[in-house]
Amino acid sequence: MNQTGADCESIARPIITLTTDFSVGSPYVAIMRGVILSINPWANVVDITHGIPAQDIRQGAVALEDATPWFPQGTIHVAVVDPGVGSDRQIVFAEIGDQRYVAPDNGLLGRLALRTKPTKIIAVREAEHWLPHVSATFHGRDIMAPVAARLSLGLAPERLGPPIDRLVQLPWKEALVLPKKVQGSVLSVDSFGNLITDITEAMLAAAPRDETVRIACDEHETLGIFRAYSDQPACTLIAVVGSSGRLELAIVDDSAAAMLGIGPGAPVTVSW
Amino acid sequence: MNQTGADCESIARPIITLTTDFSVGSPYVAIMRGVILSINPWANVVDITHGIPAQDIRQGAVALEDATPWFPQGTIHVAVVDPGVGSDRQIVFAEIGDQRYVAPDNGLLGRLALRTKPTKIIAVREAEHWLPHVSATFHGRDIMAPVAARLSLGLAPERLGPPIDRLVQLPWKEALVLPKKVQGSVLSVDSFGNLITDITEAMLAAAPRDETVRIACDEHETLGIFRAYSDQPACTLIAVVGSSGRLELAIVDDSAAAMLGIGPGAPVTVSW
Amino acid sequence: MNQTGADCESIARPIITLTTDFSVGSPYVAIMRGVILSINPWANVVDITHGIPAQDIRQGAVALEDATPWFPQGTIHVAVVDPGVGSDRQIVFAEIGDQRYVAPDNGLLGRLALRTKPTKIIAVREAEHWLPHVSATFHGRDIMAPVAARLSLGLAPERLGPPIDRLVQLPWKEALVLPKKVQGSVLSVDSFGNLITDITEAMLAAAPRDETVRIACDEHETLGIFRAYSDQPACTLIAVVGSSGRLELAIVDDSAAAMLGIGPGAPVTVSW
Repeated sequence: MNQTGADCESIARPIITLTTDFSVGSPYVAIMRGVILSINPWANVVDITHGIPAQDIRQGAVALEDATPWFPQGTIHVAVVDPGVGSDRQIVFAEIGDQRYVAPDNGLLGRLALRTKPTKIIAVREAEHWLPHVSATFHGRDIMAPVAARLSLGLAPERLGPPIDRLVQLPWKEALVLPKKVQGSVLSVDSFGNLITDITEAMLAAAPRDETVRIACDEHETLGIFRAYSDQPACTLIAVVGSSGRLELAIVDDSAAAMLGIGPGAPVTVSW
Repeated sequence: MNQTGADCESIARPIITLTTDFSVGSPYVAIMRGVILSINPWANVVDITHGIPAQDIRQGAVALEDATPWFPQGTIHVAVVDPGVGSDRQIVFAEIGDQRYVAPDNGLLGRLALRTKPTKIIAVREAEHWLPHVSATFHGRDIMAPVAARLSLGLAPERLGPPIDRLVQLPWKEALVLPKKVQGSVLSVDSFGNLITDITEAMLAAAPRDETVRIACDEHETLGIFRAYSDQPACTLIAVVGSSGRLELAIVDDSAAAMLGIGPGAPVTVSW
Repeated sequence: MNQTGADCESIARPIITLTTDFSVGSPYVAIMRGVILSINPWANVVDITHGIPAQDIRQGAVALEDATPWFPQGTIHVAVVDPGVGSDRQIVFAEIGDQRYVAPDNGLLGRLALRTKPTKIIAVREAEHWLPHVSATFHGRDIMAPVAARLSLGLAPERLGPPIDRLVQLPWKEALVLPKKVQGSVLSVDSFGNLITDITEAMLAAAPRDETVRIACDEHETLGIFRAYSDQPACTLIAVVGSSGRLELAIVDDSAAAMLGIGPGAPVTVSW
């Protein structure tokens, strides 16, 4: 009985995730799902998000960094934010940490690669693993989905093409740790309107948490770093170290992004 | 062969649903899915909705009441509308009808509990079943997802913590049945803009269906309770007993909420 | 071992897709999923889209035509865009190509049927396969979901009701191929704002691709048919043969629909 269970499990449930800028509910997502299931009907295809702003590689990179490390070892993550589709940008396979990725080589895997050095990078070039007809406008369907499906069936990544040395990297303005000060910026805005910064808990190791620490974002400021949103009354601007280990600015029970008119890129300074 | 099939089935497909206010396409949802699948790769994780308005416990409670009873017996429903995350609000496990729930104890399970007395309520306190590091801002990921995944693997709910007597309940203004009149209100608005009321078919047992019955909502009114939207021409304000067994006000082929400017809480009176 | 794997596979993963106008995140979708899983817990229920504009049968028909042929042979597609629910419109089962469909017979399967003659059409009439109580407003839940789940368990379509000769068809203004000219129209707008036309690659077989071909849409025009969006600089109006084999008008890195104020139905002429 256990034996039987183990057999089913081992053959049955490779996970393939999808992260795109196609917008939630786009039939394009369904088409990729159909292609994957046509090649491997046992794949468990799950969505990370399809709400990346159109062609915003940076927001895609942040979403992949935040979400993908939480998946089981060996999960295959397909990411399609691909303004250069049809140009000479490459498609790559990469192993980063214990996760696997298939994506255009345009910086989309950049934040993951900053955090953890990829252990394998392959240029996806061998057309025998793709759909027979490859369009110039939808490589998510024609190349990335079939490649992910074949990997989930056990295809060795080395069969996809030659190894390459490094991924394309976008410049990221990193947060700066100074004496009694950290200078960073807003990295993304979550669906509650919380401003997620690039300032990590580690960068704040020397900072006090009480009201002797001052957090400034554009012309707005607040004192103290709190543990939870519920530590302050509604409508208060509050700084917390959020669930992703990053400093967040939030307005309790409201949207900081909307109320303060702030988005990605805004400068954030913590000083004490 | 049948034996094998039965084995696979019994081990393979525990269903875990997710209901949140994270908004559709939020990476937070994907993170919960990743945590669940890391603990139980065989779980079938399905979405109820992530479109509950931010921190609107009442709309979350209505969605859970409407959708969850349609799932197979033993389904585990995880609900995260959690403005008090990080405060002293508890997380609970509850059995209500033939379904199982993991949620903050803030009223989110309240409408279900009004309808059917819970047969088991457990305070979720034993940290050994959670993620090793628990943040103060994302208990959906750190506590509720791992608890649901472990329950889906067969963990006895009693292992989660001590039993408690009752769930936190929000006050709900219930519809009132009077002689030749029922007074209620709009409970929610569906995606078509139909106004779903808290007046049930049972409360209308004595009401005629023809044009001698008058349905008023704010300053608007209509005569007769119809069987289907298609019973009246386009753009007509119509009352029907909807698919959830509740009286609905709709504008045929249009949005009643948008055209009448009406939302949850608006008074509705049926008289004859 | 292989034997065991095969057994699991053969019983385990019938795919049922859902296409509706319920809007993304609607609990109505979750209810259909719950009904299907209650009848067949092994079904793999996947979403095509729930973003069809409310009651827009034509856009539903286009989405089904675009997405469903990419799914594995035998996939069961349930489509609910059903303004006539509760009227005397029929529900049908159809086999079209190697896919199976359950939908109201209101034209929703019309574009698929224009492309490939259905090999089987059945009127869904036998109530024994439905939920015991059928509402007048939600046949997706009460009839179509249970019928799809029972088909996925092996129910012969002939058991659903009598065969019928043809599907209801909406009039579709087809693109017209003239000497040195093709006259068509915008069929749909994708989530990037690209204007997808009803002019196919085959209709353009005689057209040059260089700047001697002129593409006009309303008062806007552009020269040349390109291979990829990246063939032109940002903000350029460009014509490409898109991933669905149809001529598309796009603004590179922006939304043509928003910038030109154009939607479905707008005339498109290709001349040379």
